[in-house]
Amino acid sequence: MVRWEPGARERLQAAALDLYASKGFEETTVVEIAQSVDLTERTFFRHFVDKREVIFAGQDVFQQGFIDGVADAPHGASPLEIVTSAVLAGSGFFTEDRRTHSRQRSAVITATPELRERELLKMASLAAAIAGALRERGVPDPAATLAAESGTTVFRMAFERWLEPDSKRTLIELEREMFAELAALTGSTARSDQ
Amino acid sequence: MVRWEPGARERLQAAALDLYASKGFEETTVVEIAQSVDLTERTFFRHFVDKREVIFAGQDVFQQGFIDGVADAPHGASPLEIVTSAVLAGSGFFTEDRRTHSRQRSAVITATPELRERELLKMASLAAAIAGALRERGVPDPAATLAAESGTTVFRMAFERWLEPDSKRTLIELEREMFAELAALTGSTARSDQ
Repeated sequence: MVRWEPGARERLQAAALDLYASKGFEETTVVEIAQSVDLTERTFFRHFVDKREVIFAGQDVFQQGFIDGVADAPHGASPLEIVTSAVLAGSGFFTEDRRTHSRQRSAVITATPELRERELLKMASLAAAIAGALRERGVPDPAATLAAESGTTVFRMAFERWLEPDSKRTLIELEREMFAELAALTGSTARSDQ
Repeated sequence: MVRWEPGARERLQAAALDLYASKGFEETTVVEIAQSVDLTERTFFRHFVDKREVIFAGQDVFQQGFIDGVADAPHGASPLEIVTSAVLAGSGFFTEDRRTHSRQRSAVITATPELRERELLKMASLAAAIAGALRERGVPDPAATLAAESGTTVFRMAFERWLEPDSKRTLIELEREMFAELAALTGSTARSDQ
C-alpha cells in the first residue's frame, strides 16, 4: 500500500507496543511512536486511525480465521463441533513466534481501562460473527448464539493460559482441554437432571 | 441519604432515561436532566458521578443477587448447578414492573457505542464476581470461570429475549430454557466423542 516505506506499518506497531508497555498507553504520543522509528506523524496516520487502532489492527484477518473454521467443519457436525472447528482454525493466527508479542499486547490492554473495554467489544464482535456463520449453515438460534458464545469463552480462557509467563503448551492443546472442561461441566448436570 | 429531596434520585434516573431515549445520550446535558424534574445540576451530581452513571447505578445490588445465589445453592451441587442458582437468584431483581424500564434502558445502550462497551464491562465484572464466589465455595479453576462465564451468557441471552417487544414470559422461565439449551449443546458433543 505504501511502497516507498517498506515495513513502516510493522515498525510503527512494534514501536507503539514498546512505548505503551514502558511509558503507558495514555502517556505515549503519536509523534513519539513515529519518531522512535524515524517516521513522521503523517505516516502513522496513513496506517492507523489513532493510537488505539495500533493495538486492534488486523481484527478482520483474526476473525476470518474463525469464520473459515465454521465453513470447514464437516457436514452433519453439531453446533459445538462446528464451533470447535472455528476456534481451532482461528488459533492458527497465534503461532509460537507471536507469543511474546501477544503477551506484551495483553499486558498493555490489562493496564488500560479504555483498551480493556475495546477488547471486550472485539470478543463480542467475534462471537456475533461466529453466530452469524452458524446461522448461515442452518443452525437455529438460540443454539447458534449459545455455541458461538461458549466457543469464544473457551478461546478467551485458553488464550489467557497461553499467555501465562511459564506456559509452554500450544494454544490448540489448551483449547482442546478447555472444550473438554466445558463438556464435563454441562454433561454432569445434564446427567443429574435425568 | 438526601432527605430534603425525597425521590430525587429516582426522578433524575427516570428523566435521564426519557431524554436519552428521545434526544440521544450524547445530546443530553446534565442541566437538561435536572431541570426537567425541577432539580439543580448540583443535586444531580450529589447522586451520580456523570451521565453514564445514571444508566449503570445499582450494579452492586444487581451483582449481589447472583452472589447470594451462589451461597444458597445446596451442599454438593455441581459448578453449573451453583451457577444456575446464582442466575435465578440474580434475576429476582427483574420483576415484571421493571420490564418497561429495562427495555428503554437497553434501547439507549444499544444506540450508544460508549454505553455498549460499558455494558460489556458490567457483564465481564459479573462473571468475574460469580467465578470468585465459586472459588470461595471450593470450585477450582478452570471450572469456576467456565461455569461463571456460561451462566453469564445464559443470563444475557435470556435477558435479551425477556426484553423483546412481544415477550410475555418471565425471565426465570427463559433462563431455565436457556440452561437446558446449553446442556443439550454440550451434552450431544460429549456423547459423540465417546
